[in-house]
Amino acid sequence: MPSSIFDTSAPHGEASRLVAFSGNTIDRQSEFRSEDELPKAMAEESTRFFAITGDRLIMRAEGEATPVGLLEKRELDKFHPELRDTILLGRTEEGEALLAVHCLIQADNLPEPYKAIDARSVYRQLLMDQKTLGAYAQANSLVQWARSNRHCGRCGSAMTAEAGGYRRKCSACSHAVFPRTDPVVIMMVIDEENRRCLMGRSPHFPEGMYSCLAGFVEPGETIEDAVRRETLEESGIRVGRVRYHASQPWPIPHSLMIGMIGEALSDEITYDSRELEDCRWFSVEETEAMLATSLGDAAKTPPPGAIAHRLMRDWIDWPRTS
Amino acid sequence: MPSSIFDTSAPHGEASRLVAFSGNTIDRQSEFRSEDELPKAMAEESTRFFAITGDRLIMRAEGEATPVGLLEKRELDKFHPELRDTILLGRTEEGEALLAVHCLIQADNLPEPYKAIDARSVYRQLLMDQKTLGAYAQANSLVQWARSNRHCGRCGSAMTAEAGGYRRKCSACSHAVFPRTDPVVIMMVIDEENRRCLMGRSPHFPEGMYSCLAGFVEPGETIEDAVRRETLEESGIRVGRVRYHASQPWPIPHSLMIGMIGEALSDEITYDSRELEDCRWFSVEETEAMLATSLGDAAKTPPPGAIAHRLMRDWIDWPRTS
Repeated sequence: MPSSIFDTSAPHGEASRLVAFSGNTIDRQSEFRSEDELPKAMAEESTRFFAITGDRLIMRAEGEATPVGLLEKRELDKFHPELRDTILLGRTEEGEALLAVHCLIQADNLPEPYKAIDARSVYRQLLMDQKTLGAYAQANSLVQWARSNRHCGRCGSAMTAEAGGYRRKCSACSHAVFPRTDPVVIMMVIDEENRRCLMGRSPHFPEGMYSCLAGFVEPGETIEDAVRRETLEESGIRVGRVRYHASQPWPIPHSLMIGMIGEALSDEITYDSRELEDCRWFSVEETEAMLATSLGDAAKTPPPGAIAHRLMRDWIDWPRTS
Repeated sequence: MPSSIFDTSAPHGEASRLVAFSGNTIDRQSEFRSEDELPKAMAEESTRFFAITGDRLIMRAEGEATPVGLLEKRELDKFHPELRDTILLGRTEEGEALLAVHCLIQADNLPEPYKAIDARSVYRQLLMDQKTLGAYAQANSLVQWARSNRHCGRCGSAMTAEAGGYRRKCSACSHAVFPRTDPVVIMMVIDEENRRCLMGRSPHFPEGMYSCLAGFVEPGETIEDAVRRETLEESGIRVGRVRYHASQPWPIPHSLMIGMIGEALSDEITYDSRELEDCRWFSVEETEAMLATSLGDAAKTPPPGAIAHRLMRDWIDWPRTS
């Protein structure tokens, strides 16, 4: 019996620290922002912007250097930024304000030396350090939310940004909306006795890749029940006990991945062909071999930093008595 | 070292099964509903409805009997139901369809023998069995979401319900929205060495009541970081390790409570008076005595079924070596 509630048997410490998009250290304040903080931040020389067009980030890509995702205000003008809807993300540990703004310029119409890069590529191509990538997760989630809430869902009138962009309020009926985050369960379902795990592949995956099953938590559902329901729906496998393992902000457009481990109670797979192209059991050895390919062009699992990768790795590395 | 990943040291098994609103056993199908299933369910004699006006449930309250929350179709007519936006929740284990509909009648204008009761009272007054209460959590979350998405957030045009009400689509720009669930962290922050826990009271609480701190997970944030940030903001206490304990659907209007246990790394409380009226440390003995009051009129903690109550109870009951 552990001597502390916090002594879990999980390997590698807090798994949520080891996934991509989780390195944000910004001091937020979110809905407590006073109305003068955004204009103040806009006027500061040191302020940097995430400039987003559609679902892509505008990055400065000069020569062979790593592209830069945090831009200066003077760079924005040519992108037709929607400044009214600028969001104050907060301040870095050094006191610099970080802002996010959507721009109307088309991704394929950007002047040199700028490129528009989607969130998945920003992370997979390692274009940012962990802190910046974490801040960008916040930026993209908020910008995509704001874009989907230009009009009031109650009455259809225009909404106005308040509290540094953290609240949007209807100009007609005063209905207020707050940022949206969609909880998703992603689960490593395991058969402990036979040391194997359940994974599937979506038709959208690169050839040969498998990953954990996943799905949105439903209204009026616990996390554990979501794991059992989604696994049953997608694979036909019944799940008993469920254990939390890690979480990950997933800013495409604004999800929270909740990484769980589920206990398989049945054996025979009948997968849902609307969602999956294949679903099967993998041994520890197979999974280990697949993880070894994950940095290459023929990756058979999601890359390090993906919560599915973390679940696979930690299942294999879990301390065992037997 | 445990012999199974699923052997955690938590007392009382899966804590999420022991909280209110978690007993839903409906077979959903959610966005996979075909368009003919809702009209088919509407026409069946056995179908029952949750009829909601504003944020309250219309219940049939005859004499001394427990009010009934699932109504027949013929009862709805007098409530001016918005039938176009009816939501098919799914089917019970017995095959009955359960539906949810918002009604335009005012709560104070209901004919005998109907009453409109808010979600918190439905649960606190034990007006439903666990399964029905779970289905009602799904119903209220979906109805409140649909009410806030009558118009398209992108262009302001009217939205139409599809897939049994599980998807709303813009009649003009085709933008689609899906049900919203807001993840909230609620945390028992503990000082293991001194066997005490951190709780606060909001000005809205009944006199003498304390509970766990809580707050929305921010865009671009892990669950663990949300626990550390919210605890620091609300109480000034720094949190180190964080452990997941339970989740609870909270349909007011559509949250997912994520119950966590946090390790206090500091001692001195400086609470945020914008959110709290008091915040302090409680010993095991004090907490135990407070829990004993929770069913009475002078409850000092939330009632059994509240996830905060569960966190307090399980902290006290956690197996200890020392």
